[in-house]
Amino acid sequence: MIQQGVPADDRGLTLGDGLFETVLARAGALVLFDEHFTRLCEAAAVLGLAAPEKPLVRRQARAALEQAELERRRAAVRITWTAGSGGRGLDRPAEPAPRLMVTAHEALRPDTPARLATASVRRNPSSPTASLKTLSYLDPVIARREAAAAGGDEALMLDLGGAMACAAAANLFWIERGRLFTAPAEGAILPGIMRAQVLAAARRLKTETVIEAAPPERLADADGAFLTNSLIGVRPVASLDGQPLRQSPLTAALAAAVTAVS
Amino acid sequence: MIQQGVPADDRGLTLGDGLFETVLARAGALVLFDEHFTRLCEAAAVLGLAAPEKPLVRRQARAALEQAELERRRAAVRITWTAGSGGRGLDRPAEPAPRLMVTAHEALRPDTPARLATASVRRNPSSPTASLKTLSYLDPVIARREAAAAGGDEALMLDLGGAMACAAAANLFWIERGRLFTAPAEGAILPGIMRAQVLAAARRLKTETVIEAAPPERLADADGAFLTNSLIGVRPVASLDGQPLRQSPLTAALAAAVTAVS
Repeated sequence: MIQQGVPADDRGLTLGDGLFETVLARAGALVLFDEHFTRLCEAAAVLGLAAPEKPLVRRQARAALEQAELERRRAAVRITWTAGSGGRGLDRPAEPAPRLMVTAHEALRPDTPARLATASVRRNPSSPTASLKTLSYLDPVIARREAAAAGGDEALMLDLGGAMACAAAANLFWIERGRLFTAPAEGAILPGIMRAQVLAAARRLKTETVIEAAPPERLADADGAFLTNSLIGVRPVASLDGQPLRQSPLTAALAAAVTAVS
Repeated sequence: MIQQGVPADDRGLTLGDGLFETVLARAGALVLFDEHFTRLCEAAAVLGLAAPEKPLVRRQARAALEQAELERRRAAVRITWTAGSGGRGLDRPAEPAPRLMVTAHEALRPDTPARLATASVRRNPSSPTASLKTLSYLDPVIARREAAAAGGDEALMLDLGGAMACAAAANLFWIERGRLFTAPAEGAILPGIMRAQVLAAARRLKTETVIEAAPPERLADADGAFLTNSLIGVRPVASLDGQPLRQSPLTAALAAAVTAVS
């Protein structure tokens, strides 16, 4: 099998200049593909890149699933959209030609609740890397490494003010007296597609939602907390920095209501 | 000619998980190679990666210069050291096998002083991307784009407190009443190899040096300012955000004293 790749002068490789999306595929169907594609296009506009062609991305996603023999499995389709080849140093060529790469991998769902550990790397709202899914993804990689070193399996990342932002690869929600809390979408977090699904499910369940930048100490007194992303859906949080957290029945109710990833 | 590249699962490409160095080559000789190699190894340790083998890097640099027919020219040798293939999502495989890639390009020296424009993207000292030369280099790319949109040709990047940190791809110095100023090496800047050469040259010239995080307004009253990196050496700054800056004879004196890039 020929391994697809990129040339040495691809700016995604040399400078992290590009974007990606990770889409859940169930039995060959791409879950919430329109939402992922729209987010990719909007992010490309922020970075000053053209958007890919939607039918091409769909075709390549199907081909990647087929090649990996994952048409009947739960799979992660990764869409990578780099700024393409070349340019002198930091500057892109006058007419950048972005490069598309689509791969597929089996996506097992974690069957244990997350053990969070607070990372020292904080999210910088002045950087597009905090709010877009860019190829400059080292901060979450380092945060996850820090969490693993501290005995966790996912990182809690704070914003510059020390408030809870999100996990390394997921959004964070917590529950206080029947109300659902999550960090504001502006700046420091990637506003997840599953986050939006959970907020919509909360509206359907008549659960009041509060968007708030709150310090991590709030989790100790919360009735429960969970993480969301397109691959894991809703995953309860078991502990933060070794301290067990309460488990709320609302977590399971919201997980059930998010039918798109059931 | 076969274009060297990386496979689709290389973490340098997918996550910006890796490092690079850009070394000046003059007539086939690598300038300050030991310093670049040491910085690369130290940065690899911070990221939890093994270091490359020094003789191998040297050999590949020579081969890249030869292949590009740049053995007799002023050239930039780029050493890329990725975290290698694979891993599930953010987590590296248990035994990462980093990947080395070395390329060479002609390096013309800019023959005009820099026109700086202040970027909105700020440098985050909690992130290794601020102080290491990582493959997650999108912030400087965006800063440079902002500068170009504002009519500049290089960006002034501030730290989170609004003090001058550096340019997108260079360190910044300025001069006040015969004293040389630059931002502190801790956290928000990549401590450049040419920066260290300039500080050493200042000592030889008995020029007092002050390490200070200062607001950009200080440049307006400064006697001169310049940028440094391994490829440009010392480059005077003509203006900041359209306001012309003074030119100090100390800039040329320091440029002459930094013989390594003469």
